[in-house]
Amino acid sequence: MPSFPSNAVIREVGLRDGLQSIPTILPTAHKMEWIKDAYAAGQRDIEVGSFVPAKLLPQLADTAELVAFAKTLPGLVVSVLVPNLKGAERAIESQADLLLVPLSASHAHSLANLRKTPDEVIAEVGRIRATRDASGSKTLIEGGIGTAFGCTLQGVVDQAEVLRCMQALLDAGADRVSIADTVGYGGPAAVRELFGRARQIAGDKFWCGHFHDTRGLALANVYAALETGVARFDATLAGIGGCPHAPGASGNAASEDLAFMLAGMGISTGIDLPRLLALRAKVARWLSNETLHGALWLAGLPKNFPAELAFSPSTSTPL
Amino acid sequence: MPSFPSNAVIREVGLRDGLQSIPTILPTAHKMEWIKDAYAAGQRDIEVGSFVPAKLLPQLADTAELVAFAKTLPGLVVSVLVPNLKGAERAIESQADLLLVPLSASHAHSLANLRKTPDEVIAEVGRIRATRDASGSKTLIEGGIGTAFGCTLQGVVDQAEVLRCMQALLDAGADRVSIADTVGYGGPAAVRELFGRARQIAGDKFWCGHFHDTRGLALANVYAALETGVARFDATLAGIGGCPHAPGASGNAASEDLAFMLAGMGISTGIDLPRLLALRAKVARWLSNETLHGALWLAGLPKNFPAELAFSPSTSTPL
Repeated sequence: MPSFPSNAVIREVGLRDGLQSIPTILPTAHKMEWIKDAYAAGQRDIEVGSFVPAKLLPQLADTAELVAFAKTLPGLVVSVLVPNLKGAERAIESQADLLLVPLSASHAHSLANLRKTPDEVIAEVGRIRATRDASGSKTLIEGGIGTAFGCTLQGVVDQAEVLRCMQALLDAGADRVSIADTVGYGGPAAVRELFGRARQIAGDKFWCGHFHDTRGLALANVYAALETGVARFDATLAGIGGCPHAPGASGNAASEDLAFMLAGMGISTGIDLPRLLALRAKVARWLSNETLHGALWLAGLPKNFPAELAFSPSTSTPL
Repeated sequence: MPSFPSNAVIREVGLRDGLQSIPTILPTAHKMEWIKDAYAAGQRDIEVGSFVPAKLLPQLADTAELVAFAKTLPGLVVSVLVPNLKGAERAIESQADLLLVPLSASHAHSLANLRKTPDEVIAEVGRIRATRDASGSKTLIEGGIGTAFGCTLQGVVDQAEVLRCMQALLDAGADRVSIADTVGYGGPAAVRELFGRARQIAGDKFWCGHFHDTRGLALANVYAALETGVARFDATLAGIGGCPHAPGASGNAASEDLAFMLAGMGISTGIDLPRLLALRAKVARWLSNETLHGALWLAGLPKNFPAELAFSPSTSTPL
C-alpha cells in the first residue's frame, strides 16, 4: 500500500472560486474578516481573488485591497488568479506571493471560457514569466490545467493533451503546475493515473489538485491524489463555488470536510477544526441566500476526535 | 499501487436501513415496484427489510411479503436483517437467501441499540447457526459489526475489539462477516487499516463494507476498502437512512453515486445508471417529505460517460 504524506496544505479558494460563482457580493470588510479568521484557524494558503476587469466579476473588484491586507499576516501565502498578462502585471504590482494562470485542456472549453486556445494561454505564460523576471518580482507563477478529466462542451479530454499542456507550461516558465477537475467528471482511479503521470513530469513542481464535488467524488479524488504524493489541495469553505460552465454544479471540495478527512488520516494541515467550523457558521450567515455544501458542519466533530488533532502548529512547507 | 477488483456488488439497503430511519411509511406496492425496478436496473443484491416486531418498526412490517415477492426474481440475492433468533427463524421460514445479524462493537451502543452485549449477540449467532443447520435451510448468516470506527456514546472503539468480535462471529458459525461505520466516524486511512486486517482474519468471508455518509467520507472510504480487496458495499438509493443513534446523520452512501464512481473506475457492477437514476426520481416522488442525498442525480451523467458502461450483464459473483 502506498504511504501518505505527513503534512498537507489546504489552499482556501472560497474567496475566489467560491465568491465568483454566486450572486451575493460580499463586502470587503467581511472578506477581510474571513481571511483573518481563516488565518487564526491555521490556514496559511489563501487565494484572495482575481485580477480580472471589475465589470466582468464585480464580486472580486476589491482583490488589490485584499492582497494588501492578507500580506500583513505573517507567513500567509497569498494567491490570486489572473487570466492574462494584464492581470499578472497587477498581481506582481500587488506583491502577491503567487499568481495562478488558468488553462483549459479542453479546446472547446478554453475558447468558451478564456477566449484563447490552450497554446495561446501557454504563450501568455511565457510573456508573464518574462515580465515577472524583468521586474525582479518574487511572485510565483502557477499554471492551472482545468477540465483535465473531461468537459461539458466536448466531452472527452485526452490525458495526453493534459500532460502535453503541463510540460509546455513548465517549458514556458511556470514555476508550478496544477490540475483541476473543473466539472466533476474525474473519479479516483482516473486521478490516481493522471496525477501519477503528472508527478513524473513535474515532480515537486506539481503543486495542487483542485476537485469540484459536482458528482460527490471530490474527497475520494483527494485520497487517490494523496497516494501519488500530491499534498496540496484547493478547497472552499462550505463548498461554495464550482464552474459556471458546469450545469447543475454542486460545489467544491468543502475545506472543513477535507480538513477533517486529513486529520483522521493523521495528516497534519495546521488547521484548528472547531475554529474553522465557527468561521463556516459566520460565512453561512453572510451567504444566507446561497446554497452551501459539506457534511461536517451538520454532524459536528466525532466524540472520538482527538483533541491533539484539533490544532497543531502550521507545518505548511514554504513556497 | 494496489489494483482494484474487476467487479463489485452494491447491495441496495434502502428498503431497510433507509426506510427504517424516516417517518414516511412506503406502501408495500411501492416497495415491490422499487425492488422490481432495481432488479431491472441490474441490482442483484437487495436487503428488503427486517424481521423485527411490527410495533417497533411499522415501516418494515411487510418484510415477509417482500421476501416472497423478491424471491420470484431470478438470480436476485434477497437479504433481511434480524435482531435475534426469533427474527432468524422468520427469515429462514421466508427462505431469504441471507440474514444479517447486527452486532455493535461499541459496548455502550450495543446495550442502547440492541439491549445485549456484543458477546450475547455472538452467542445468539451460535443459536441461529444451530437452528439454521437443524432446519436444513440454505439461508446464509452474516454477522455485521457496527460502530466499528467509534460511537456517539462511548467515543473510541478499539480496533482489536472489532477484530475479536469478527473472529468470534466466525467461530460461532457466521458464514459471512461485515463491517459498518454506523455513525460516520471512519476515514479512508482507518478503513484501509481495519479492512486490511479484517481480510487477513476472514478472507473471502469478509463480505461487505457499510459506510454512512454522516461526514461526507463514505465514497472515499469505499475507495480505500477496494484497495484491500473488499468488493461488496451496502448503499441506499438517494442516500436515505443513517442510524437513529447518530445525531445529525446525513445519510448513507448513495447507491447511484457509488455506482457512478465504480463505473468510472472500470469496475463492473451490472448496474444501468440511467435506469437507476430514473428509479431514484420515482422514489424521490414517493418520499417527497424526506431529506434525500447524493450528487449525481442533480448533475447528471457526464458527457464523456461511456455508453458501454451504462449497462453490462450482471457479473455479481454467486453467494
